[in-house]
Order: sequence, then C-alpha cells, then structure tokens
Amino acid sequence: MFDLIAFDADDTLWHSENTFAEAQENFRQIVAPYCDINEIEDSLHRIMVGNLGHYGYGIKGFTLSLIETAITMSEGRISAKEIQALLDQGKAMLAAEVHLLDHVPETLAKLAENYRLMVITKGDLIHQESKIERSGLREYFDFVEIVSDKTHQTYTTLLNRYQIIPSRFLMVGNSLRSDILPVIELGGHAVYIPYHITWAHEVVAISDEAEKGYFELADISLLPALLEGLQESRL
Amino acid sequence: MFDLIAFDADDTLWHSENTFAEAQENFRQIVAPYCDINEIEDSLHRIMVGNLGHYGYGIKGFTLSLIETAITMSEGRISAKEIQALLDQGKAMLAAEVHLLDHVPETLAKLAENYRLMVITKGDLIHQESKIERSGLREYFDFVEIVSDKTHQTYTTLLNRYQIIPSRFLMVGNSLRSDILPVIELGGHAVYIPYHITWAHEVVAISDEAEKGYFELADISLLPALLEGLQESRL
Repeated sequence: MFDLIAFDADDTLWHSENTFAEAQENFRQIVAPYCDINEIEDSLHRIMVGNLGHYGYGIKGFTLSLIETAITMSEGRISAKEIQALLDQGKAMLAAEVHLLDHVPETLAKLAENYRLMVITKGDLIHQESKIERSGLREYFDFVEIVSDKTHQTYTTLLNRYQIIPSRFLMVGNSLRSDILPVIELGGHAVYIPYHITWAHEVVAISDEAEKGYFELADISLLPALLEGLQESRL
Repeated sequence: MFDLIAFDADDTLWHSENTFAEAQENFRQIVAPYCDINEIEDSLHRIMVGNLGHYGYGIKGFTLSLIETAITMSEGRISAKEIQALLDQGKAMLAAEVHLLDHVPETLAKLAENYRLMVITKGDLIHQESKIERSGLREYFDFVEIVSDKTHQTYTTLLNRYQIIPSRFLMVGNSLRSDILPVIELGGHAVYIPYHITWAHEVVAISDEAEKGYFELADISLLPALLEGLQESRL
C-alpha cells in the first residue's frame, strides 16, 4: 500500500516543544527586570521569525535570537553574565536527554517489519543527528533526512530522490503546516498526530478522514491498526 | 573512469575562510580593551573547538563561540552593545555575497558534460543551501549533500546511498583532513587543491602522485586535463 512511511521527529517521536517552552520561561525571568513583561513574548516572536531566513530552525538560531531579544528589550542593559546564562541554556538544550513519546519504539518496531521507514526532520544538522543516535530508534529507519524546511518543494525533491510515487508515500507528524498539508498537496497521504494531549482525538472513521485528505490519530500506537484498516478497505 | 565526482564547497568552489579571518580580526578589536591581546587567539580556538560537539561547523556556532569568548576574556565586562555587534557580524556573514574562486563555473560546465557531479559540504544546513543557490552553480550538480562532518563513515554512507564503488569515486577539495584522507582510506580517489595561493603547486607527474595516493592541483582549471591524462594513462 505504501512504499515508504516517513516520520517527523520533534514532537512526533520525542518531546521537543516542552524544552523550548521551559527555555522561554527561563528567558522571561532573566529579562523581566529590564522591561515590560507583557511585551516579552511579542518581541521574542517578532525577532525569531525575522531571523528564520538567516538562522533557520534549531537551538543555535533560537539562542542567538534570545540574546538579541534580551539586548533589544533591556536597551543594552542586560549583563554579560545574563547573556552567558542564555548560552549555557542553549548548550544544555543541545545536550538534553531525548525523551521518547509513549508507544514510539514498539510501534516503529512493528511497522519496520512490513514497511520501509524514514525520518524527515528539520533543524540543526548536528543536533538532529545526535538526537536520532541517542534516541535508540536509528535501527528502525532505512533513511534519515534532515532538511532546512518542509515545503511542497522539499517533499517533491525527496520523493524524486528515492523514486517514490506520491500516492504510495505516507507522512506522519504533528505539524499540519510542515508534515501534513504539503504532502496532501502533492498527492501523498498523511497522518496527523497532534502533540499536546488536549489536541488529541480518537481515531475517526476512514471515510470521514478521506474527505479531509488526511488521518488524525490520538497517538502513534494507533498507526498499525489504521494501516491494517486501510489495507482491508482497499481489498 | 569515475561514476561520480564530488566537490567540497567552502574554499574549493567559493571563498569562505577569508570571511572568518576578517570576523576574527573584528572580534580581536572588540575584545582587545578588556584583556591580554596575545591570549585572544588561543582562547577563541579553545572555546570553538570545545563547542564543536555542541554546535558543529558553521557561522551560527562560530558566532555563539565568539560571544562566549568575549564574555570569558572580558570577565563579564563586555557590553551588550558589543555583543550586539557580534550578532550583527554573524548575520552579515550569513547574508554575504558568494565569491567564486577563479575558473570554477567554466570548469564545472566542462566536467558536467561527461560526469555526474556532486557537492559535499559541511556547515549549517540553511546557510550552505543558500550559498549553493546564490552561487549560480546549482545547475552543474546532480546532487547536493550537506553533512555535519566529513569522516570515513560519512563518505561510506554517501557512497552506499548512491551505490558508487569507491574506486570509481573522485573527491575534490581543499582540506586534507576532510576531503582527501578519508576518501583515500576507503579506496576512493582525491584531488587536493590548496586554498591559499602560497600553498599552490603545479601539476606533478601522475606516477609521483599515485604514490602519495592523491593528486594535487594549483587550481580547479587543471582538473579536466588531469582527468584526460588519467584516461590516457589507463588505455
């Protein structure tokens, strides 16, 4: 049914966003004495998005943007010691243990028996490689692709490289923008697994999902059953 | 004779090291008032090498290491404004125009007629992609691979992925450590083109080169003639 199943990594295979949320909370406490606390989030967001073209995704660019925001918001009054704390935080994030989401290893082990599996993740090259190695999941994947962004063009290039027909490609991830919509657009299939527990839903009927163009699962453990269901509905 | 010819990018296709040298000179002037000027280079080198495991290669990690070195060497007395200057410098480096080395486009155009060509470069994903696009050289390459490091293992993985036999692979680059020695070690061929004009040598006789295990050229324009010479010596 599928020649290749690809998985996003951050917040699909392991926790990531929580680390950024903690780092932003720590950042807020560092800069709060210097500025209007209500403006921190907006400024940081504006600077981070403005820097994406230069820095791309990942912790190194995030840390550079935190330092820039701290200098801007404090009007240059932030101390070198406080900037050092932001550098230390960045290194701690890069070295942080990889915490897998529930059911990930056993689900991948099961799927790897019948499918070729791939990781498609964005961010800093060396950090993503390091997380994949440390995750203990490397053995389940035939291919690992670390990309600078996940657009229609990114997926087209990857499918060409691996000579996969879009209709026989399935992407699994937690981001509608990066993992789901561009894949649907080029004629592939996608399974959306929201990261936060409050966003999670039960499996819905396949016919309903087909209308939206993608499937939505509460967690990764439901993926093998979905694939079996699709197989049967096709017979 | 070769199924694939791969090129390093920084200081092989375009200038790069000169940008880092200028940035370090600028850095020296910023921190000089705060410390013993004779210790700047050693401290920076020590911190950069110590951070390679966290940051990998590239301008983002370089900039983070400059900030850390400035804070360390000034014992926390460096100002936020001066750190902002280092951030600005990093962005300027990322946005800097790509300056090709002499003879690069015409040589690649010539080689692309007869060979499949690849770029293998290390550094920040988004920055390397951006330089390749802006270089105007993209059309000559069948494949572009951006890697976090260039070890024996890196080349083995790439050759497996593209199903290339090492003896039919040629790597061209300016770094003995990254471009030449690991390729020779796995049974491939390599052409060393030193970056600095003072390191350059004329083409030497093929028999002499064969003993060293790699070829050395003064500049990339000599590569087609070397390949023709090899072809003839093989007949």
